[in-house]
Amino acid sequence: MSFDRTLGNIAAQAWTVMEEIGRLTGTAEAGITRACYGEGEQIAAEKVSHFAQGLGLELQPDRFGNLHGVVPGTDPSVKAIMTGSHLDSVPGGGNYDGLAGVMASIATAAAALRDGGQRRTIRAVAMRGEESPWFGTAYVGSRLMLGHSTLAELGGLPRIDTGRPLQEHLDNLGYASAPVMPISRDTVAGFFELHIEQGPLLTARNLPVAIATDIRGNIRYPDARCFGEYGHSAALPRAYRHDAVLAVAELALEFERFWEEAEKSDPSCVFTMGKFGTDPAAHAMTKVPGEVRFSFNVGSIREEVIAQADALLARLLDSITQRRGVRFEMGPRFGSAPSRLDPALIAMVEDSAKAVGPGALHLATVGHDAAMFHQAGIPASVMLVRNANGSHNPRESMTEADFVLGTRVLGGAAMRAANS
Amino acid sequence: MSFDRTLGNIAAQAWTVMEEIGRLTGTAEAGITRACYGEGEQIAAEKVSHFAQGLGLELQPDRFGNLHGVVPGTDPSVKAIMTGSHLDSVPGGGNYDGLAGVMASIATAAAALRDGGQRRTIRAVAMRGEESPWFGTAYVGSRLMLGHSTLAELGGLPRIDTGRPLQEHLDNLGYASAPVMPISRDTVAGFFELHIEQGPLLTARNLPVAIATDIRGNIRYPDARCFGEYGHSAALPRAYRHDAVLAVAELALEFERFWEEAEKSDPSCVFTMGKFGTDPAAHAMTKVPGEVRFSFNVGSIREEVIAQADALLARLLDSITQRRGVRFEMGPRFGSAPSRLDPALIAMVEDSAKAVGPGALHLATVGHDAAMFHQAGIPASVMLVRNANGSHNPRESMTEADFVLGTRVLGGAAMRAANS
Repeated sequence: MSFDRTLGNIAAQAWTVMEEIGRLTGTAEAGITRACYGEGEQIAAEKVSHFAQGLGLELQPDRFGNLHGVVPGTDPSVKAIMTGSHLDSVPGGGNYDGLAGVMASIATAAAALRDGGQRRTIRAVAMRGEESPWFGTAYVGSRLMLGHSTLAELGGLPRIDTGRPLQEHLDNLGYASAPVMPISRDTVAGFFELHIEQGPLLTARNLPVAIATDIRGNIRYPDARCFGEYGHSAALPRAYRHDAVLAVAELALEFERFWEEAEKSDPSCVFTMGKFGTDPAAHAMTKVPGEVRFSFNVGSIREEVIAQADALLARLLDSITQRRGVRFEMGPRFGSAPSRLDPALIAMVEDSAKAVGPGALHLATVGHDAAMFHQAGIPASVMLVRNANGSHNPRESMTEADFVLGTRVLGGAAMRAANS
Repeated sequence: MSFDRTLGNIAAQAWTVMEEIGRLTGTAEAGITRACYGEGEQIAAEKVSHFAQGLGLELQPDRFGNLHGVVPGTDPSVKAIMTGSHLDSVPGGGNYDGLAGVMASIATAAAALRDGGQRRTIRAVAMRGEESPWFGTAYVGSRLMLGHSTLAELGGLPRIDTGRPLQEHLDNLGYASAPVMPISRDTVAGFFELHIEQGPLLTARNLPVAIATDIRGNIRYPDARCFGEYGHSAALPRAYRHDAVLAVAELALEFERFWEEAEKSDPSCVFTMGKFGTDPAAHAMTKVPGEVRFSFNVGSIREEVIAQADALLARLLDSITQRRGVRFEMGPRFGSAPSRLDPALIAMVEDSAKAVGPGALHLATVGHDAAMFHQAGIPASVMLVRNANGSHNPRESMTEADFVLGTRVLGGAAMRAANS
């Protein structure tokens, strides 16, 4: 059979396994929860390994729990092509964010094993902990694998649900004796990632897949605080108050205004305060709120918009502090510069999309694990599969037909690269 | 000795007992926690009873755990005068909010027992659960005692810290066989309450005591919710978002604007959103927030300001719902109309304040237990004792000198009423 035909068949089987993993790691109401180095992620790892094995593809774990499936090419002297995504989910998320890319990459490698004959080695990889809620930082598995961070640096981070450190969770999974398997631009020529679309744009445009052209840069504070002063809600006149809720509400609405203005010329601009909470141990309806914890997250594909947001944040923190007599502790800052994805890989995905379907929309995207490859100097490409209901929520959706088509686009692109 | 001199001596002893209760029910850092029908409130009840007993005053519990100390007057045919306050505190509050009024009323009754000879019976009362955080509703003890609510109505309310119902907490204290002791306008001619000031105004005016002239009315929603839609923080364009944090932030800031305007002609106007929280089980830095729980609390001594706030709330809920595609569930509504306190009692407190000290400032106040007496048709009066640091927080402060002076003002006023 042709590679594309074989890949379509395997993709249909991969869909069934993916649905089974969904049933094992969540419910329709509460959504999917696959914690990094936790039970749900491990169930997914085992089911994926079992599925690959049934197709003749042995997955090997590395020391960080990422699972690698290698299909040698005909020319051992050239760099490999890699494809993959992540096994974890956000708490209460959907089944396809991450896992769809893992299943598509396993299907691609398995089809190459059966009907490939490609020049370059193809490596499928199922990665760990891409989502930031678990350890307060994103890309855990790919970051460790690519050497951007070490276990000495990340090992002590507590997991949000258990409070126990990353190293302990990892040790419990028994990968301590697995090899490190370093991946770098010296050994890998390109990385392809299939990912569920995270907004509803493809549905609006009636297209099944999109190609990412840029990775948004962002400014992120996962655990910021504003300290005001607790006081009695009735008897304290406005002039004497230091209300932390009103202070952070002002910050939020000022950034919403900035965003409204910015998106006129930059549709990639986004702003989110996903966490906002007074202290349950101290707050009351009858107390002026003295503390708010919040997250802050602004992104764009344009350097100058990121720079403007950064300047606005500094100005607002200063002026709100002065006017309201509150104090901000913004905590650790994460973020990255925007970056343009590799044009040669984009062209291959575009060719593949034209070959198997109606073509693809060009879109900006968030980082995904592909951002870590890009940062490591490995040309990277992300393709997005249609999702009517947005990602990071239980109603996230993908059809089998879109998944199979998307997998064929991914596999076709990877095979083009593997023969280049 | 004169009643006033005796009262001053007993008030100094009461101060020592009050400080001891503070040490037993909290710390300087975490503040005082005396849950309604909980451990801290019960410690206070026992220490207060023991103190009263040492002064020859036996406190009798009623079926709701309120403690009554009765000093008969010379004329059994006339109505009694009552004085008291509450034993509980907010979580992490101060030592004097409630307890100072209890101690002052015990001191007043004990001094009357020794040197009174007054015409009317004086009843001191230490009440339960005035603070709303515990069962989501205020004035538990006084409301039950005065018959505004029944145990059948309130008994099922869960306590915020334990989740167990009010009835169960009450039963555990063993008051089931105590008498109901109904208090009404048929038996009580007036109620005097000493309470710690809840704002910092007396410090600013350099006066130790104030007389409340009005009780603020308010509109209160202790447990409101705004439902938006969870979504991916990066990939979801603004037009597709239903962000619950921004929706509630807008409500907060619009009400802050209303308040700024209202306070120009109504300094009694206050607005507080003391609770504001995304769902810790579902929120993330990388998710558009799909739900916020919050409290809403606006108050004024002016009917028309309350009415304006109510109309604004309705308008804003409607317009925010429309524009942002969110949904509000405001939950149970509590609140009351503003009311003017009894001029005859105010005059007695004023006379007493002039007799023992530098006089008193006139202020609006929140309800306190006195509001329940007022609603029951019993003339009620509240006097406030200086507090530099505001109430409902661990730094709440009162000096011994101010407490003794305040107790003398309270006792003098109660004695004037008892001889009227």
